[in-house]
Amino acid sequence: MFTYPRQVQFYETDLMGIVHHSNYLRFFEEARVAWAHYLGVLDYQQKESAYFLAVLETQVRHLRPGSFGERIEIDLEAKLEGIRISFQYRIRSLTQGVVLALGQTVHVSLNLELRPIKPKPELIKIMGSRQWTETWL
Amino acid sequence: MFTYPRQVQFYETDLMGIVHHSNYLRFFEEARVAWAHYLGVLDYQQKESAYFLAVLETQVRHLRPGSFGERIEIDLEAKLEGIRISFQYRIRSLTQGVVLALGQTVHVSLNLELRPIKPKPELIKIMGSRQWTETWL
Amino acid sequence: MFTYPRQVQFYETDLMGIVHHSNYLRFFEEARVAWAHYLGVLDYQQKESAYFLAVLETQVRHLRPGSFGERIEIDLEAKLEGIRISFQYRIRSLTQGVVLALGQTVHVSLNLELRPIKPKPELIKIMGSRQWTETWL
Amino acid sequence: MFTYPRQVQFYETDLMGIVHHSNYLRFFEEARVAWAHYLGVLDYQQKESAYFLAVLETQVRHLRPGSFGERIEIDLEAKLEGIRISFQYRIRSLTQGVVLALGQTVHVSLNLELRPIKPKPELIKIMGSRQWTETWL
Repeated sequence: MFTYPRQVQFYETDLMGIVHHSNYLRFFEEARVAWAHYLGVLDYQQKESAYFLAVLETQVRHLRPGSFGERIEIDLEAKLEGIRISFQYRIRSLTQGVVLALGQTVHVSLNLELRPIKPKPELIKIMGSRQWTETWL
Repeated sequence: MFTYPRQVQFYETDLMGIVHHSNYLRFFEEARVAWAHYLGVLDYQQKESAYFLAVLETQVRHLRPGSFGERIEIDLEAKLEGIRISFQYRIRSLTQGVVLALGQTVHVSLNLELRPIKPKPELIKIMGSRQWTETWL
Repeated sequence: MFTYPRQVQFYETDLMGIVHHSNYLRFFEEARVAWAHYLGVLDYQQKESAYFLAVLETQVRHLRPGSFGERIEIDLEAKLEGIRISFQYRIRSLTQGVVLALGQTVHVSLNLELRPIKPKPELIKIMGSRQWTETWL
Repeated sequence: MFTYPRQVQFYETDLMGIVHHSNYLRFFEEARVAWAHYLGVLDYQQKESAYFLAVLETQVRHLRPGSFGERIEIDLEAKLEGIRISFQYRIRSLTQGVVLALGQTVHVSLNLELRPIKPKPELIKIMGSRQWTETWL
């Protein structure tokens, strides 16, 4: 399991005084990109490097509202299924000591013309037959 | 069925040259708010007016990438289930003549302390036992 | 003078219950792009079409807060100075009947390697020696 | 001088492959909020705590484009002038070893009805007659 720390920013709140729900997809993306960079399969210097994480599906379940300044941690697990990579996420608030949200996203590798291709060999090698330990959502 | 027209903005694209996936939740929200205002159950002048659409769950399936300047239409259907309101969405590109994305969101009414409450009577009256005509996602 | 209509969205508010200030740069951009498309110097189908509006400088003065659902109009004027294009903006609220914000932005044309180049001939032809009628900011 | 570290996120890029200009105002805000929290004049637990940083004016000059994954640092200086607080910012790229942008923002304290008020005593005490060491923009 990979964990990514984050703090809720002022510009991520809305008039209800809580984190706007669209930002959870951005929190997931930050964690996913940090995970890929950590594993060495994403190189910030190469533009096409992020194209193996094109988004096919997203799903979020909100359990508690998040607030300005709140310290959160995003837990992440990944698995490879055919040419697709699936992630699950759990966002925990360190400030409140509760889970704020759960989510899943599905991705596919694209070439520069945005057509689906097989994942690059180093990703297949690293991912192997890794599975999620359990299903959070 | 309610339809909301929209054009993709430059600031909604990312380095892949397409609409960033988090913006689809914002397109859904725009359509949902326009629908609620059209039916007279959302008053822009009253801050608490939007609190009956607090987000519990979101789901998006991406079929084709959207591009800068593309003209889209968001079809929307709503139904009331207990204290929850569920919406489904279909985003069509007029420019490409295809469906870009499908989605669903689930909502609950909150009071000003962000606790779940029953939907306001005028919403129950308007929604009645209205169902989705079919399921898009 | 070119005028672009817009409505403030829910996701553009922050916990103070007003439009987050970063969104004014997005309102300016929407107006600028609509202006360029209207004049025929921006083609949505061509990715490099927007590269003549790379941003060098921005400036915003906030006079009144904007609110969720508010109907606004963005007035815009442009002028060409050497290889730079400058715009000024005035955001009026139709709902409140007041000016919400004033702004200016400065732009330069870039090639695909992001290096400054001369504006394309059709832009020079259209802009001519057009000046702002007055300075708003 | 206060320095705030940050990394450019994927969702902050646009179709030109660089950081969208509106995000620089968000980088400034992150640095400003971190500074205020560091000095003890902003309490994340109290909603009204951020109301002393309501935005009156913003200004940004872009020197170089920023890219996905780039590590940046935001330098910040503050000064109090009557009831207004002014900040200047300098965004340096650690990845490129250059300055990406310079900026200034002006703020005023608001009460919960969004009317200007005098800064709170602890802010006046902390700020004293502190001046910027030089002007960056």
